Amino acid sequence: MTVSDRWLLPDGVEDILPPLAGQIESLRREVMDTCQRWGYQLVIPPLIEYLDSLFTGTGHDLALQTFKLTDQLTGRMMGVRADMTPQAARIDAHTLHQDGITRLCYAGHVLHARPQHMLTGRTPIQAGCELFGSSSEEADLEVIRLMLESLRVAGVPEVHLDLAHVAVYQSLIEAADFDEDTEAAIFDAMARKSIPELDQLLGQCPPDTPGAYLRALARVSGGLDALKEARRVLAGAPANVIGALDQLKRIAERLRESHPDLRLGFDFCELRGYNYHTGLVFAAYVPGHGDAVGKGGRYDAIGQDFGRARPATGFSLDVRALVALGRRTVRRSAVIWAPADPDPSLDAAVARLRATEAVVRALPEDVSVNPAERGCDRVLVKRDGQWVVEQLEIQ
Amino acid sequence: MTVSDRWLLPDGVEDILPPLAGQIESLRREVMDTCQRWGYQLVIPPLIEYLDSLFTGTGHDLALQTFKLTDQLTGRMMGVRADMTPQAARIDAHTLHQDGITRLCYAGHVLHARPQHMLTGRTPIQAGCELFGSSSEEADLEVIRLMLESLRVAGVPEVHLDLAHVAVYQSLIEAADFDEDTEAAIFDAMARKSIPELDQLLGQCPPDTPGAYLRALARVSGGLDALKEARRVLAGAPANVIGALDQLKRIAERLRESHPDLRLGFDFCELRGYNYHTGLVFAAYVPGHGDAVGKGGRYDAIGQDFGRARPATGFSLDVRALVALGRRTVRRSAVIWAPADPDPSLDAAVARLRATEAVVRALPEDVSVNPAERGCDRVLVKRDGQWVVEQLEIQ
Repeated sequence: MTVSDRWLLPDGVEDILPPLAGQIESLRREVMDTCQRWGYQLVIPPLIEYLDSLFTGTGHDLALQTFKLTDQLTGRMMGVRADMTPQAARIDAHTLHQDGITRLCYAGHVLHARPQHMLTGRTPIQAGCELFGSSSEEADLEVIRLMLESLRVAGVPEVHLDLAHVAVYQSLIEAADFDEDTEAAIFDAMARKSIPELDQLLGQCPPDTPGAYLRALARVSGGLDALKEARRVLAGAPANVIGALDQLKRIAERLRESHPDLRLGFDFCELRGYNYHTGLVFAAYVPGHGDAVGKGGRYDAIGQDFGRARPATGFSLDVRALVALGRRTVRRSAVIWAPADPDPSLDAAVARLRATEAVVRALPEDVSVNPAERGCDRVLVKRDGQWVVEQLEIQ
Repeated sequence: MTVSDRWLLPDGVEDILPPLAGQIESLRREVMDTCQRWGYQLVIPPLIEYLDSLFTGTGHDLALQTFKLTDQLTGRMMGVRADMTPQAARIDAHTLHQDGITRLCYAGHVLHARPQHMLTGRTPIQAGCELFGSSSEEADLEVIRLMLESLRVAGVPEVHLDLAHVAVYQSLIEAADFDEDTEAAIFDAMARKSIPELDQLLGQCPPDTPGAYLRALARVSGGLDALKEARRVLAGAPANVIGALDQLKRIAERLRESHPDLRLGFDFCELRGYNYHTGLVFAAYVPGHGDAVGKGGRYDAIGQDFGRARPATGFSLDVRALVALGRRTVRRSAVIWAPADPDPSLDAAVARLRATEAVVRALPEDVSVNPAERGCDRVLVKRDGQWVVEQLEIQ
């Protein structure tokens, strides 16, 4: 490796520079402050854990996404977290172990072995909230509304919210009782929304059987009309499928009350990225950007795997992606330039100003520097024995 | 692995829970805000890089401390950062590539393969500042003063600052021209301050030779008197050794002017943890705690290794350790409890309050909950058709 390429970063890994780094930090703070104003308490889960613990209750996809490393102290395999939600579930189930409802929030880097998201590469900055101990629809609504509020804070325009329910597909595929290979092929075709493949795989199923319902369902997506259509084509489906559709309808109605301008969609076959979810799931999109900007849903099973059954729901979003997509106004930096003058009264003036302002102190190398080129809008100058701040003349 | 130990975390790895997580977040913000008020711009270096890039210009110790992982996209070895300072140097030398002086600050998790610091284990939260482009003592002073200001913000009491200069030991050991094994043995004995071993290793050196100076130096440490004593025993040493001692004296005098209460110490044999430093180095201690709470110094060589020679100095500290040692007053949480009432005017009242206050909304499971047990100090109640905030009676 030569000097010239020693600083090349791996694909999907980047330095975040000023002013973008400051914008990300600012949004990270505002999202965390918003979550805390909704009663969510901050936790800081560790960057690494043993693999057994990281993958408890989660799916195969997360295992593929996780960087593995060896613990030199024990020889056991550890992983760098690829998702903080299972960590929050572990903290709720084991570390905190509180009775009643627990609300947690967090923000931090996660690592993905392969890039998932165009705007965030392999080192997204995940921020999220998780609500444990409530199986009520009120809890689902609270986390959806808090996600929408976080997206509003981020200045993300025209959010489109997709709702789905994991039980719809899962109940039908279980009832259909296909062999493992067929099931995998159907899952794959569903995820890619490949109607011809699904017709081939499910075309032989008699009407009003789970297979026929799955085939019909793949054709249904869209707004509130799609929900009605799903209800129609699945009229004879098992009770828990109908129950899931009814729940989607109630949630959608409540959201229309609180967010009349929100565009709602339903996609009954959206299966990708829901590794550990068990109930209502949701994802927020913005026009022109294929990846979800925020997503979440109900996952009532992870706590059980940690030895404590707890209903759970939550959401997470990527702060880096939100800054790229959002329309937050960027405050121009206001910095005061202090000359390289050894006058002790200048030290005092600088210290006083720094209580509220940014002040750059010139160094000996700065003799011929124009403060404006260093991003300063004002200078400290001595007038009649007093150090005063003066506006820089714009050239 | 059974259910009961699935959540065990590796040694030196921990969940940070409320309220500690909130205190860490708050100090992290205040330290970053302080650095920005001194003109340092925030950067977010990546969690992972190729090993070649992470280890450029740094020492063997850092390589031992770094967790390695394989890039699935290229098969090349990457590492999780164990120190963010070399990343900042890479950003200055290559990514930013600005003329003149560049000031950068950062905060984030680093990973250590083995625990280094009692209070922080293997996942410290490093915050720091780096100043590139100035070889002046003003620059050294600025970063020391900014570190002291950050420690003040953290509420760390009675800071003791150790000053040293890497050139003292390095010039003498080079001039002595020992074979490699002897040199390694001297380094090791110096680091452990083992006088008997040093006497054995260096006892044969004639007076006024580099070896004799090294042996004498190991006996000198302490306050300003130690600096005078070092000047005396090294009177005939090479010019750059004398130059380094003179610089220490000037820096100490300037610090006594700005920080008259600061306790200063000199330790000419402090070699541990300075992997890439080339000049003046410093470390802050608090009574009763063996590890440095903040440290830094001059490292003028890393930029060169990235293809651009840049004088550099900076400091870093561990936010987690500072919270444990600091005496910051913890603000009691002030949270308002809103009942599980479907009244739409309650939604509006909660939304209004959340602009400035934390409000927890009760869920159906909360029917018999006492809001005080959930950390609330006030409740929303309906009086004469209006939702008003009332103080909770203390029981």
